Amino acid sequence: MEIAILLYEGLTALDAIGPYEVLSRLPSAEVSFVAESPGTKRTDNHRLALVADHALEDHPHPAIVLVPGGRGQEENMRDGALHEWLRTAHETSTWTTSVCTGSLILAAAGLLEGKRATSHWLALEALGRLGAQPSSERVVVDGKIVTAAGVSSGIDMALALTAKIAGDDVARAIQLAIEYDPQPPFDAGSPRTAPAATVEALRRRTRFKDSAAAS
Amino acid sequence: MEIAILLYEGLTALDAIGPYEVLSRLPSAEVSFVAESPGTKRTDNHRLALVADHALEDHPHPAIVLVPGGRGQEENMRDGALHEWLRTAHETSTWTTSVCTGSLILAAAGLLEGKRATSHWLALEALGRLGAQPSSERVVVDGKIVTAAGVSSGIDMALALTAKIAGDDVARAIQLAIEYDPQPPFDAGSPRTAPAATVEALRRRTRFKDSAAAS
Repeated sequence: MEIAILLYEGLTALDAIGPYEVLSRLPSAEVSFVAESPGTKRTDNHRLALVADHALEDHPHPAIVLVPGGRGQEENMRDGALHEWLRTAHETSTWTTSVCTGSLILAAAGLLEGKRATSHWLALEALGRLGAQPSSERVVVDGKIVTAAGVSSGIDMALALTAKIAGDDVARAIQLAIEYDPQPPFDAGSPRTAPAATVEALRRRTRFKDSAAAS
Repeated sequence: MEIAILLYEGLTALDAIGPYEVLSRLPSAEVSFVAESPGTKRTDNHRLALVADHALEDHPHPAIVLVPGGRGQEENMRDGALHEWLRTAHETSTWTTSVCTGSLILAAAGLLEGKRATSHWLALEALGRLGAQPSSERVVVDGKIVTAAGVSSGIDMALALTAKIAGDDVARAIQLAIEYDPQPPFDAGSPRTAPAATVEALRRRTRFKDSAAAS
């Protein structure tokens, strides 16, 4: 099962690596990291580089497409080779997926028109402006499109997807292998549970641009 | 605050990237990915390369040392430049940390003698043979040594560490930023909760070697 994980300059590493760590353990997984131009891609904070071994055109028809988010999402909102690849890949994919603001890229490519989808909680309004029906659920499945909320949610998304693809037993075995028995020290991972002041502070200093697509 | 994250051939990506995604958001964080030889390091399944920008000797005294695990841990159990760096860095570090079988490397370097520590649940016996007092807790703090259980536990460890370093409010804000509101689809992330057959199947096919250190 061919799995193509998109990399680009300014991605958030965990958006890609969380699902990778789960999906790469599928019995039949063949994971490839792809990019418009292969080579090293630095993360949003520039402190780490991941290597995209393959060009988009090397993998025109993956079974699973995964689009991570991150600050660099803004540079991937204009139509072009990436959006074209996404539209073509989506025609034949079994699952087209995203984590965090990766869903804004899927939406800008025209794949989420009228679809229920999620994104980072700070990007849900932008997602709506791009034609999707935003949901604040952590993992949203609409047909073959599976979107996950912010950054760390890709792990939950990938486990849910694994269960659909290979059954609950395989998903449980992978969850045990990566010892995913989360014990966050605070109940603050969602705007519903975090202190209001924390939510407001983060809202004030973060803005995800969706304007490139609208222009 | 200088944070050095070790990379090596055969590491498990999420072991490093989970804590990186949290700790890099500390207000004063300066994260560097380091390796015995800088350059690309492929993960345990060879499907991804991460780039170590820096040599160990470029960062002799990080405030935080982080050692991830992964199949490649076995190649890092013999004394040499890495262990020497770990011992020297540990002398002046504020926190010396590991995820998954990274603790076997810390133990092989002589840093866990008599210390309470954890590791991947399948590696706890090996950890004991290397002189540590194994614990099955998800995050174990003994003095300035902080060890985490398998793969995904590094996220919880890093949030707990963030709270110690910068306070609960900063930790909550980072947890909200990465939307860490885990909703695993199964209660199977620990050998205590997973079906017995799943635990046994994984135990049969996995063995972490600690013999290099003992030889």
